[in-house]
Amino acid sequence: MAGEIKIVESGVDHPEEACGIFGIMSPDQDVARLTYYGLYALQHRGQEGAGIAVSDGERIGVKKGMGLVSEVFPTPDCLPKQKASLALGHVRYSTSRSSSFANIQPLLFRYRHGCLAVAHNGNLLNGDELRQRLEADGSIFQTETDSELIAHLIARYGHDNLIASLKAALPYIHGAFCFAFMTDDILIGLRDPLGIRPLSIGRLGKGYILASETCAFDTVGAEFVRDLAPGEMVVIDKNGLHAEQVLPSVRTALCIFEFIYFTRPDSNFHKENVHLVRKALGRQLAKEHPVDADIVTGVPDSSLAAASGYAEEIGIPYEMALIKNRYIGRTFIKPIQDDREFRVGLKLNPVRKIIAGKKVVIVDDSIVRGTTSLRLVNMLRQAGAKEVHMRISSPPVIAPCFYGINTPSTDELIAAQKNVQEIKEMIGADSLAFLSRQGMLDCFNLPPEGFCLACFSGEYPI
Amino acid sequence: MAGEIKIVESGVDHPEEACGIFGIMSPDQDVARLTYYGLYALQHRGQEGAGIAVSDGERIGVKKGMGLVSEVFPTPDCLPKQKASLALGHVRYSTSRSSSFANIQPLLFRYRHGCLAVAHNGNLLNGDELRQRLEADGSIFQTETDSELIAHLIARYGHDNLIASLKAALPYIHGAFCFAFMTDDILIGLRDPLGIRPLSIGRLGKGYILASETCAFDTVGAEFVRDLAPGEMVVIDKNGLHAEQVLPSVRTALCIFEFIYFTRPDSNFHKENVHLVRKALGRQLAKEHPVDADIVTGVPDSSLAAASGYAEEIGIPYEMALIKNRYIGRTFIKPIQDDREFRVGLKLNPVRKIIAGKKVVIVDDSIVRGTTSLRLVNMLRQAGAKEVHMRISSPPVIAPCFYGINTPSTDELIAAQKNVQEIKEMIGADSLAFLSRQGMLDCFNLPPEGFCLACFSGEYPI
Amino acid sequence: MAGEIKIVESGVDHPEEACGIFGIMSPDQDVARLTYYGLYALQHRGQEGAGIAVSDGERIGVKKGMGLVSEVFPTPDCLPKQKASLALGHVRYSTSRSSSFANIQPLLFRYRHGCLAVAHNGNLLNGDELRQRLEADGSIFQTETDSELIAHLIARYGHDNLIASLKAALPYIHGAFCFAFMTDDILIGLRDPLGIRPLSIGRLGKGYILASETCAFDTVGAEFVRDLAPGEMVVIDKNGLHAEQVLPSVRTALCIFEFIYFTRPDSNFHKENVHLVRKALGRQLAKEHPVDADIVTGVPDSSLAAASGYAEEIGIPYEMALIKNRYIGRTFIKPIQDDREFRVGLKLNPVRKIIAGKKVVIVDDSIVRGTTSLRLVNMLRQAGAKEVHMRISSPPVIAPCFYGINTPSTDELIAAQKNVQEIKEMIGADSLAFLSRQGMLDCFNLPPEGFCLACFSGEYPI
Amino acid sequence: MAGEIKIVESGVDHPEEACGIFGIMSPDQDVARLTYYGLYALQHRGQEGAGIAVSDGERIGVKKGMGLVSEVFPTPDCLPKQKASLALGHVRYSTSRSSSFANIQPLLFRYRHGCLAVAHNGNLLNGDELRQRLEADGSIFQTETDSELIAHLIARYGHDNLIASLKAALPYIHGAFCFAFMTDDILIGLRDPLGIRPLSIGRLGKGYILASETCAFDTVGAEFVRDLAPGEMVVIDKNGLHAEQVLPSVRTALCIFEFIYFTRPDSNFHKENVHLVRKALGRQLAKEHPVDADIVTGVPDSSLAAASGYAEEIGIPYEMALIKNRYIGRTFIKPIQDDREFRVGLKLNPVRKIIAGKKVVIVDDSIVRGTTSLRLVNMLRQAGAKEVHMRISSPPVIAPCFYGINTPSTDELIAAQKNVQEIKEMIGADSLAFLSRQGMLDCFNLPPEGFCLACFSGEYPI
Repeated sequence: MAGEIKIVESGVDHPEEACGIFGIMSPDQDVARLTYYGLYALQHRGQEGAGIAVSDGERIGVKKGMGLVSEVFPTPDCLPKQKASLALGHVRYSTSRSSSFANIQPLLFRYRHGCLAVAHNGNLLNGDELRQRLEADGSIFQTETDSELIAHLIARYGHDNLIASLKAALPYIHGAFCFAFMTDDILIGLRDPLGIRPLSIGRLGKGYILASETCAFDTVGAEFVRDLAPGEMVVIDKNGLHAEQVLPSVRTALCIFEFIYFTRPDSNFHKENVHLVRKALGRQLAKEHPVDADIVTGVPDSSLAAASGYAEEIGIPYEMALIKNRYIGRTFIKPIQDDREFRVGLKLNPVRKIIAGKKVVIVDDSIVRGTTSLRLVNMLRQAGAKEVHMRISSPPVIAPCFYGINTPSTDELIAAQKNVQEIKEMIGADSLAFLSRQGMLDCFNLPPEGFCLACFSGEYPI
Repeated sequence: MAGEIKIVESGVDHPEEACGIFGIMSPDQDVARLTYYGLYALQHRGQEGAGIAVSDGERIGVKKGMGLVSEVFPTPDCLPKQKASLALGHVRYSTSRSSSFANIQPLLFRYRHGCLAVAHNGNLLNGDELRQRLEADGSIFQTETDSELIAHLIARYGHDNLIASLKAALPYIHGAFCFAFMTDDILIGLRDPLGIRPLSIGRLGKGYILASETCAFDTVGAEFVRDLAPGEMVVIDKNGLHAEQVLPSVRTALCIFEFIYFTRPDSNFHKENVHLVRKALGRQLAKEHPVDADIVTGVPDSSLAAASGYAEEIGIPYEMALIKNRYIGRTFIKPIQDDREFRVGLKLNPVRKIIAGKKVVIVDDSIVRGTTSLRLVNMLRQAGAKEVHMRISSPPVIAPCFYGINTPSTDELIAAQKNVQEIKEMIGADSLAFLSRQGMLDCFNLPPEGFCLACFSGEYPI
Repeated sequence: MAGEIKIVESGVDHPEEACGIFGIMSPDQDVARLTYYGLYALQHRGQEGAGIAVSDGERIGVKKGMGLVSEVFPTPDCLPKQKASLALGHVRYSTSRSSSFANIQPLLFRYRHGCLAVAHNGNLLNGDELRQRLEADGSIFQTETDSELIAHLIARYGHDNLIASLKAALPYIHGAFCFAFMTDDILIGLRDPLGIRPLSIGRLGKGYILASETCAFDTVGAEFVRDLAPGEMVVIDKNGLHAEQVLPSVRTALCIFEFIYFTRPDSNFHKENVHLVRKALGRQLAKEHPVDADIVTGVPDSSLAAASGYAEEIGIPYEMALIKNRYIGRTFIKPIQDDREFRVGLKLNPVRKIIAGKKVVIVDDSIVRGTTSLRLVNMLRQAGAKEVHMRISSPPVIAPCFYGINTPSTDELIAAQKNVQEIKEMIGADSLAFLSRQGMLDCFNLPPEGFCLACFSGEYPI
Repeated sequence: MAGEIKIVESGVDHPEEACGIFGIMSPDQDVARLTYYGLYALQHRGQEGAGIAVSDGERIGVKKGMGLVSEVFPTPDCLPKQKASLALGHVRYSTSRSSSFANIQPLLFRYRHGCLAVAHNGNLLNGDELRQRLEADGSIFQTETDSELIAHLIARYGHDNLIASLKAALPYIHGAFCFAFMTDDILIGLRDPLGIRPLSIGRLGKGYILASETCAFDTVGAEFVRDLAPGEMVVIDKNGLHAEQVLPSVRTALCIFEFIYFTRPDSNFHKENVHLVRKALGRQLAKEHPVDADIVTGVPDSSLAAASGYAEEIGIPYEMALIKNRYIGRTFIKPIQDDREFRVGLKLNPVRKIIAGKKVVIVDDSIVRGTTSLRLVNMLRQAGAKEVHMRISSPPVIAPCFYGINTPSTDELIAAQKNVQEIKEMIGADSLAFLSRQGMLDCFNLPPEGFCLACFSGEYPI
C-alpha cells in the first residue's frame, strides 16, 4: 500500500558488483518458485536487492525490490503467478555508491527484437569508455549497471536476432563477467574469456539451470552438470542446451578469492569443494607457520574451516572463542558514529572463559585494511588472552581487484603499505604470519596458472 | 526496510497520461519542500505515483514511489536533504495498463551532456512509430513513458547542448504534451503547439515555478505570472526566465474538459476560473433546459458548482442529496466482483429525507459510458424520488480523446451509439438534456476557436 | 513482516472519545465484511484506529490497528476468515493524549463468564473516581478507555451471567455513553439515560445491526428500525432482539452538536436529517442576521449546507470560494512548526477570482478558539474580499463538553472570554453574528428540552 | 504509517515461554539504547516480538512490536526519546498458540500504586488455577501471559507499596520464573525458588543491569557481578542494589537444557561457560561411545562445539559437512505443505565432497520427536555417506518440560516411546548412542543435585 521511496543518484562511476545469478528453463516445473529457492541459496552473494523475471513464452514480467530475498518476496505466494517455463533471478551486492532500486536486477529492456531480461555478475573494465562512446552515439542511461551497457550494445551493434546481436556486441566488452539473458523463449549464459567469475550448469529433470554457485543446485534438488568454460556461451531453449565458444580463451584465471572468502563452503568450483580447500589452507598455514599456543580459533564464519584445519595439523584444541550474533543483519549496516564501539561487540563476542590466560591462535582468511585485525587482537586481549598469534590463510593483499570484488585502493591496503613486521606491530599481535603463495596454490588440485592472483601479485590477467 | 515489489511488464502500448507537473528554480528556498506542497495541490491530477528530483547544482537525486504524495513522502523529512535550488516533481495518473514503479516520474537519464530529469503530462500521438524507429536504430526502452521517448530523441538527434538538442528533437514529436526538463542547473518547460494541456508560470521571490495548475502557486504562496503560450519553451536558470517560441502555433486548442471535469475549481486557465465557469455552465444549462422540479442536486464533487448555478438560475433549492464518503480512496479501486453493489453505496449515499417524494434535478458534468448515470437515477428512485431529471453541463461525448485524457473507445461511448431519447430510456430518467455546444462556449470569455472540442465533435485539431 | 511500533504511556487522564460503533448479528451474512463496510461509513467519527471482532459461536477473534479502516484492513480479504454470525466494529477518534495501539477498540477481555468484546462511544464522568475505586480494590488497567472500566465493573460487581452482571454494574457509571458488547453468542447495545450519544437499530434480512449513525445502515443495505431510547438496553441473539429499559430516563438530552458539526449529513437522528437541519440553521441565521453582500460561501465540508441555506434565504449567490484539498489526511496532522503557514494553504485555498472585490459572507458552524476564524478572515482579505461578514450557524460556545466531544477548557473558549464585538475585532471581520439559541431550536421538529445545550449554556444535564 | 493488524484470540491456555529479559538502571547512560543492544544479544531467546519500556522518573513509555529487535526498532533512533535512567526490555519466543501483539512484553499496567512494567521468562505451573481464582474474584484478562497474572496478584493481594505487595503475591505462584518489574523509579528482579530459569546481575559504571544471559553484559560493555540466587529478589534504585531472599530455597534446579541447547555459547551460568560445557559433553560422549569413522560433523549451530569435542577426543577430523543457510529466518517459518522438502534443503545443505564415501559421525544435542534425526541421516546418506553414526550429547528426553521450554507431550517424545535400538532403526542410522546422565553431569563443576533433569528423568523438582 505504501509507496516505497527509492533514491537514484547520477554521477556514479565504477560500480563494483559481486552478485548471484540463477536462471532456469524447465517446462515441467514451477520455475518462479525454484528461482526463489535458488536465490535463497545465493543470498550470501548479495543482500542489497533481489529480483525474479519470468516468461510465459509471450510476455516477461519482473518483480524486484531492495533487501533480502525474504523481504522482497515475503512468501512464495508473492512470486509472479503466471505459468512460466523460463525464469531469471538475481541477488545484488550492497555497495555504498549505488544503492538504488533502479540498479536492482534483472533489468528488463524492450528493443528491436522484443524483450530482454539481463542479469550480471562481475565488472566490465571498459565500462566508462563504453558508456561515453554510447552516449556520444546518442544512448541514454537509467542505471549504473553493466547490464544496461550490454543491452545497448546488443540493440545497437547487433542485427538479425539476439544470438547474432550478442556475438556482435561481445568484442566491445572487456573485463570479468558472467551474464545471463532471458527472452520470451530462451535463456543464455555467458562467461568471460578468463573465467574470472563462476557460472555453472545444472540439470533438473528435462530442464537446465544456470547458477553462480553449485549450492543453488543442491537447494532445488538439481544435479551439477559442469562449469561453463571461459569464453563459452550456452543457449537453453525448449530443445535443450547448446554450447558454443564465442570468445577465444587463451587461459583461465578463476578468482582465487571466491575460494578463500566469498563462496559458500558447500559450493564447488571446478570440482574443488570450498570447505575442503579452506581447511587445507589452514593445514598448510600450520605447516608453514606453527606456533606454541593453547587454543586455535577462527573468525566466524569464513575462517572457521581454516582454523579447524590449523588446529588439527598443529594438534591443539580448536575452540569457538568468538561468537557471532546471528541476528545482526543488513539492517544494521547504517553507521552511527558513536555506536561504532557497540557494533563490534554486537556482532562478535569473545568468550572470556575460553580465552583468559591462554595463548591464542586466531585464524582469519585475509587482511585488507587491517582495522578488523586490530579490533580482533584488542578483543582477545581484553578477554584475557596471554598471547595473540594471528595467522592468515592467504598471502598479503597488495593490489585492488578490478574484476568484481569490492576492495579498497592501494593506499588503503595495509599490506601494500607495510611489511609483515609493521602490520604485526600495527595490529598489536604477538606474531603474525601469512600463508605463502606457493603454499596456497598447493592446496588445490587445479593448475596454479589457472587462477587470477592479481590481488596478491599485482599482475592482472587483463 | 522491506523491499517493495514492483512489476514491470513488457508489451504495453498507448499509455494514457493525465498528470501533474511542478518544477521550481529558487536559490533562496527549500525547493524540495515547496515541490512536495505543490504536488499535494496537484494530487487530484494523479494518484498512482509521485516523485521529486532535486539538483544541488552538481548532482541530481530523485525519490519516487507508488501511491499518494502522503504515502511516498510520509513526512517532509523524507524529502531529499541536500541543499538544492532546483526541483522537479510529478504526480502520475493511475491507468490499469501500465501500473508500474518504472513508469513513475520524473525519469532520470544520463546522456552525453550529463543528467536529465524529465516529467510529462499529455500523450504523444506518434509514440509507437517513434518507438519503432528508435528501436530500429538500436534504442532500448525500460519504461512505457513518453518521457523516455523524448530523452532518446534529445540524446540521438541533438548536438551541442540540451537546448539545441531539444530543439532538434521537437520536430519528431506530435501530440498533446507539456514537458518539464531539469538538468544540474536549468529548468525547462515546453507546451505543445496547440496548447492542449495546461502549464503555467509562477513567481516566488526571485525564483520561478512551472505548474500544471495555478492552485499549486496559491499553495506555496507564489504569484501567477502567465500561462505558457502554445509552442513556447521557457528556460529558467540563475539568470531568470527566458522564453522562446520553439514550435510554430497556428491556433490554440485548449482541452475544454480541463474546465468541465479535471481541474481543481480554484485553478485558473487562461484567466478563467474553473469554479466560475462551471457555475456559468449550470446557469446556461438551466436557461436551455429548465424543468419543473422541487430540488436540484449535483454529483459530488465535480458537478456541485454547475448544480448550484442551475438551482440559482431556475430558482429552486440546491440540496446536497448525494453524500460522498471522503475516506474511499485509491486503495479501494481494486474491484471485487461481488462487492460492486456495496462499493457504489460506500462511495455515494442518497439522503432519503431530502429526496423522498420530490421531483429531483440531478446535474452531472458529462456522460461517458452511461453506467454511472444509470446508477445515479436508480439510487435516487430507490431513495423515493418522484421524478428524476438528469441535466448534463456539457454536450454529448461522441469521440475518444487521444490527447491525454483516459476515455473509452467509440464503441463504449454511449452518446456515440444512442441519441438523447435512447440514453434517457437506458438510464431510466424522466428527462435528460445536455448543454448545447454553443451554450457551453458562451460561458467562456475565451474565443470559441481556442478550444479542443474533439470529444464533442470528433474533429481533432491534430 | 515488520513489527509495528506502538507507544503506551501511563499517567493519562480524561480521554475524550467521539467514536463510531457498528455491531451486527446475522447468521446468513458475511458479518465481518458488512462490519468493514459499516466502519467505512462511520470513518468520519474517528480516524485514529479501527478494529473488528467476530464470533463464530465459540471463539472471539479481533483484528485492529492504527489508522483508517482502509489502512487497518487494506482489502476485505484481510478480515477474519472464520464463519461468524456476530461482529462488532469500532473506529476511534484521534486525541493527542492517548494515541496508542492499546486503546484501539473493540477491547477483548476474558472474565469469569468467558470472553467479552467491548466498544464505546462517549465519556464517563466518574471515570477517574471509578478507576481509583477499582484500583483500591486491586484492579489493574492496561488502557485508558472507559471500555476497560465497564469490563472491570461487570467482572467484579456482577454475578450469574452477563446480562445480570451488566445490570449490576450500570448504577456505578455516570456520563454520556453508548456501549456495545459482544460475547460468543450475543450482541448488546446500551445508551445512557439522557441519550446524549446516538445509537440506532437497523435490520438486514433476519439480522439486526447497531450503529452510531444511520448512514451505516444505508451503506450495507439495511433498513433503519429505530433509535435506542435513553437508558435502554437491547440484547440481540439468535432469537431476535429483546429490549429492556435498564436505566431510568427522566429526560432526553441529545447532543445538539452531533447535528451541527459531527455527523454525516446523510444520517438521521430521532427522525431529523442532518443536512436538512443544517440548511434550516443557515436559513434561520439569514433571517436573524442578514447582510448586504455579493456572495455567500461556507467552510468545507461541514458548513456548506448552512451556507447554501443562508444564500437561498437572503437571495444572493452561493459560491464555493474556499476549496478543500481532498488529499490532506490524517497523515498530515503532525505539526511542523515552520510549516504551519503552508498547512493552512494546503488544506483550504481561497479562489481569488470569486472573492476579489466582493463583499463576502462566510458561514461557519461554530467558533471554538477563534484561531480558525481569524485565519479564514485573513485568507479572504488576502484574496481581495472588499468586506468579510462572518455568520455562525450556532450560538457562542461558552462551556466545555464533558460528554465525549473534544473541546478546550473555558480559558481557551473565545466566546467564554469575549463578547461578540470583541471576537469580531479579534478575528478582523467586518461583522460577526451568531445564530440565537431559540432560532437554533426552532429549526428542529424535536422538543427544545430534548437536547443537551450545555456547551451554549453551561447548564449540564448531569 | 499503515495500521498493523494484530489478532488476539480468546480461549488460549498454557502459553509456553522461553524469553529474554534485559533491565537497566543507570542515571548516566542512554538506557534505552543499551537495552536495545542488550536485546540484540538475547535475540536467540525469542524472535516473535520485542519491547522496551523506559522511565524518566515520572512516566513510563513502552514501544513494542512483532518481529525481531531489528524489525521492531529499525534504527536506534526509533527508541523512546525521553531522557530516562530506567529501562526494561524483553524478547518473546514464538509459539504457535499465542502469537499476538497483546502478549508482547513488557506489559504496562496501572494499579493503585502507579505504573508497573512487567517482563517474564518462564512458566507458572498454577497459571490456570490462578486465572480461574482471579476471574472468580472479578478479574479481567487481556493477555495470556503470566505477567498479567502476577500484576493482578500484586494489585489485589498486596498493600502498602510495590515491594510489600510483591511479597504478598509471591506465595500464590508456583513454577519456573524470572520476573523483572519496573516502576517509575525502581527496577526489580526475581528468580524462582529453584532457580530453574537464569537471571544475572551486571554492573555498568554506577548502574546495574539484569539480564537473562551474561552475553548481554559483554555486548553493552558491562561487568558480570553474579547470578541471582534461587528465591532471591533484587531491588535496584538510585541508591544501588538491595538483595533479599524473598522465597525460601531448599535446593537449586537449574535447567540443564539451557546449557545443552538454548543459551548462546558465549554466556556463562553459575560460572560455567556454555561453549566449554558443550565441548566437554562432546568429549565425554566420545569416551562413552567411540566409533570407527572418517569424519565427525555437528548440526549447526548448537552442536558444533560438542562435535569438535568429540572429534578431538577420538582423534579424527572435525568437518563442517552440513552448511546452514544464514538467511533462512523467522519469516520462513510459515509452513507450506508442498514446499517442505525444499525447506529442509534450504536450511541445511550437506557437502557431498566431504561426505561421499566416508564413515560419518553426526553429533546432535538432543532427540525430541526423531523426525529431524531421520532427515539428517537421510541427507547424509543421499550425499554419499558410507556409514552414518549418530551421537547425542545428552541423555534421551523422556518427559515434557513444564518450566518454560516448549517440548511436545510424552506421546510425541520418541525416547519415551522407543528404546535406543528402536530409535536407531527408525532414523536409519548405522549406530546411535546417547550420552549417559552421569557422564553429562561429570562435565560440570556444579553439584549434580543442582540441576533440573526432569526431561531426562521424569522427576520434576516442583
